[in-house]
Amino acid sequence: MIATIRSVYELYGFVPLDTPAIEWLPVLTGQYGGQTDMDIFTLKDPDGEPAALRFDLTVPLARVVAMYPDLPRPFKRYHVAPVWRADKPAPGRFREFLQFDADIVGTSSMAADTEIIAIMYDTLSALGVQRFIIRFSNRKVLNRLIQKAGIDPFFAVDVFRILDKVEKLSLDGVKEELMRQGEPGVDQREIVASARCLGLPESSADTVLNFLKIRGNNDEVLKQLSEFFDDLAGAREGIQELAAILQGLRSLEIPEDRYTIDLSIARGLLYYTGPVFETSLLDAERFGSVFSGGRFDRLIGRFLGEDVPATGASIGVDRLLAALEALDLIKSQPTPAQVLVTILDWNRMNDYLQIVGEIRRAGIPAELYMGEKAPIGKQLQYANRQSIPLAVIAGPKEFTAGTVTVKELLRALEDTSKQTSIERKQLIPFIRQMLS
Amino acid sequence: MIATIRSVYELYGFVPLDTPAIEWLPVLTGQYGGQTDMDIFTLKDPDGEPAALRFDLTVPLARVVAMYPDLPRPFKRYHVAPVWRADKPAPGRFREFLQFDADIVGTSSMAADTEIIAIMYDTLSALGVQRFIIRFSNRKVLNRLIQKAGIDPFFAVDVFRILDKVEKLSLDGVKEELMRQGEPGVDQREIVASARCLGLPESSADTVLNFLKIRGNNDEVLKQLSEFFDDLAGAREGIQELAAILQGLRSLEIPEDRYTIDLSIARGLLYYTGPVFETSLLDAERFGSVFSGGRFDRLIGRFLGEDVPATGASIGVDRLLAALEALDLIKSQPTPAQVLVTILDWNRMNDYLQIVGEIRRAGIPAELYMGEKAPIGKQLQYANRQSIPLAVIAGPKEFTAGTVTVKELLRALEDTSKQTSIERKQLIPFIRQMLS
Repeated sequence: MIATIRSVYELYGFVPLDTPAIEWLPVLTGQYGGQTDMDIFTLKDPDGEPAALRFDLTVPLARVVAMYPDLPRPFKRYHVAPVWRADKPAPGRFREFLQFDADIVGTSSMAADTEIIAIMYDTLSALGVQRFIIRFSNRKVLNRLIQKAGIDPFFAVDVFRILDKVEKLSLDGVKEELMRQGEPGVDQREIVASARCLGLPESSADTVLNFLKIRGNNDEVLKQLSEFFDDLAGAREGIQELAAILQGLRSLEIPEDRYTIDLSIARGLLYYTGPVFETSLLDAERFGSVFSGGRFDRLIGRFLGEDVPATGASIGVDRLLAALEALDLIKSQPTPAQVLVTILDWNRMNDYLQIVGEIRRAGIPAELYMGEKAPIGKQLQYANRQSIPLAVIAGPKEFTAGTVTVKELLRALEDTSKQTSIERKQLIPFIRQMLS
Repeated sequence: MIATIRSVYELYGFVPLDTPAIEWLPVLTGQYGGQTDMDIFTLKDPDGEPAALRFDLTVPLARVVAMYPDLPRPFKRYHVAPVWRADKPAPGRFREFLQFDADIVGTSSMAADTEIIAIMYDTLSALGVQRFIIRFSNRKVLNRLIQKAGIDPFFAVDVFRILDKVEKLSLDGVKEELMRQGEPGVDQREIVASARCLGLPESSADTVLNFLKIRGNNDEVLKQLSEFFDDLAGAREGIQELAAILQGLRSLEIPEDRYTIDLSIARGLLYYTGPVFETSLLDAERFGSVFSGGRFDRLIGRFLGEDVPATGASIGVDRLLAALEALDLIKSQPTPAQVLVTILDWNRMNDYLQIVGEIRRAGIPAELYMGEKAPIGKQLQYANRQSIPLAVIAGPKEFTAGTVTVKELLRALEDTSKQTSIERKQLIPFIRQMLS
């Protein structure tokens, strides 16, 4: 799976970049500690400086770009590596999980965001997924919604997280969450995001709901959006970005049933500034979004003092793997070995080593039986359990005659007709023929 | 480099296995804390249980094998992943570094250790290294040396670490280190290994030195070893293991100038019990051993209560990469892209997206220029810096005529004769031909 994803990314000209798992804590939390609300694993650092494990691959990328001004611009990098979050583990939510990110740094062109969606499409297609949909929206549009609804921008991300739940909650549920009152006297700015009650007035909640009701095909949604915002300053830029991506995807001839402007998509992370993306597998929706991201034009500025535009997306590898397994698109193979060289005469290990060496030199993955001394039947059972298709058998008789027996295993373990005695020097061509 | 190593390992029937970076601390330190003297990064675990980052890939493998009794036996796994050590960083010694391990669990057969050496040979050959040597010895033999020299077995690993330094220290230096007296009244068992003074009597040191003087070709070393130990119980088993590996390597037809029994090889880790291996690159010796390992028949027993024999080796990936770069065996490529689609008319981004999409669909890695609006010359400079060999150029004139210009970059950036105007529909075949 990872090899397939990598080959798609390289087709787009992305280069691999690895960064350390450990970052200084302020890199992750921001200088004032308020730029993330992730649960971070911190380390007892031997030098007494606060260090921690990265919670995503985007913040370390931003740190690296800021540190190495000589990197090419645009810089297109991919990175597959584990990240860590110290929150409560749950089914499908791990404390350590693998992410596979692709990002384009140094361009504000919507062609970059279009490419990110295109790479999402090509990746899932290359993995054999038949039915999926990429949903995208735009934070600039969403920020204007906050403004139009008269909501305090401090709580914008809290509203976005509620929007993200519209499929689960339905519109009524969203309205309820938006309006839920906190305990009297509690300043909602002071408590953790997950426990906040926004207590919005009904008029604000209704504005949000009217926004969420904008649905239809992509051109219809764009038209309704323009009407919804009328001439609200700033909304136009976000709508134009959505339109530019739509145009780009059409130019790339990506089938229009594979992507949709979906105004409920907001992504819960603080650092997004423009387009945001998510992907659902339609035959495995319970796995949630397997490929998500967005534009983060101000994250690098946190380290550099000067903003550098950037956009990208991330695959939750464990989640995607589980989904592909559920869709029967991944076959796990117990071993790459195609041949087991069995042992009949335990005093001739060196002869068997020679045989297995010869098979490997021909480029055919092969194993020498190395379990406890066992009769040939048990050795063949081992091969069978490992789904190794062929076994090579040679005893004193064969060594004397200069022959060797090759047995087909997968179809008929007991069927002795499925074995052939051949001349020793015919072994490699015979194995090749059997495997082809 | 990693892809090459992986393909060799799979030829031997090894399967990938990944384990978490974080382990419970007692898994790493042993139940009584004394089974490692590594400097470990510990974590502030949210549940209050002591957790830490792994310092190698072998201990986690042992833990996994103990936890999952249904794994096949023998179990052949490879693992490429970072490990962490909290000791002082130095040139070439990082706190986080990548290891690439291959281990065979569940067999005490010397055929397994022979395969580990064979895989070391095949891997370095596949990476294009011309001159290297795999040195191996045996802990059983070394333990008998400790006994014969009358040394307290508690200090065995301290002696082994001094042996490992013989090339740096020479024989006289080794003798000096073995005999160095500690401060009076200090119990050497109580202080950290790196500061211990063994204070051995000269007779013990001389026994060790006589052992180190055993040199010659592999058969001579085996003969001298038998004479050295005479009939000391237990030495014979280690010598037989050395002989079995030697026989096996000859059966596998590995050139005899690529491996040698070297009695100074001991490896500093506590958990080795039998054969131990190291590899030097003869044209880059300053990088030290790039591929090392040994048999650890009792490590899994630490977790399982019952011993499971196992052997394996580990590549220090960062070190090997640095060595291969020094040997000019690794070319780093700034980008996989073979074609840059440049932009002449900034209002026709969608046409350019279409071109780059078409090139990628043909399987050719390609980039669309996404930097700031810049004249064509600057775009070609970008391609040149990225070592992209071809640029596609199309402006209003080309779009009207249904043509496109392809420019060769690497050889002659300024030479306009190196560009060809072709029909748009000939683009893919033309690029293919130029790249072949």
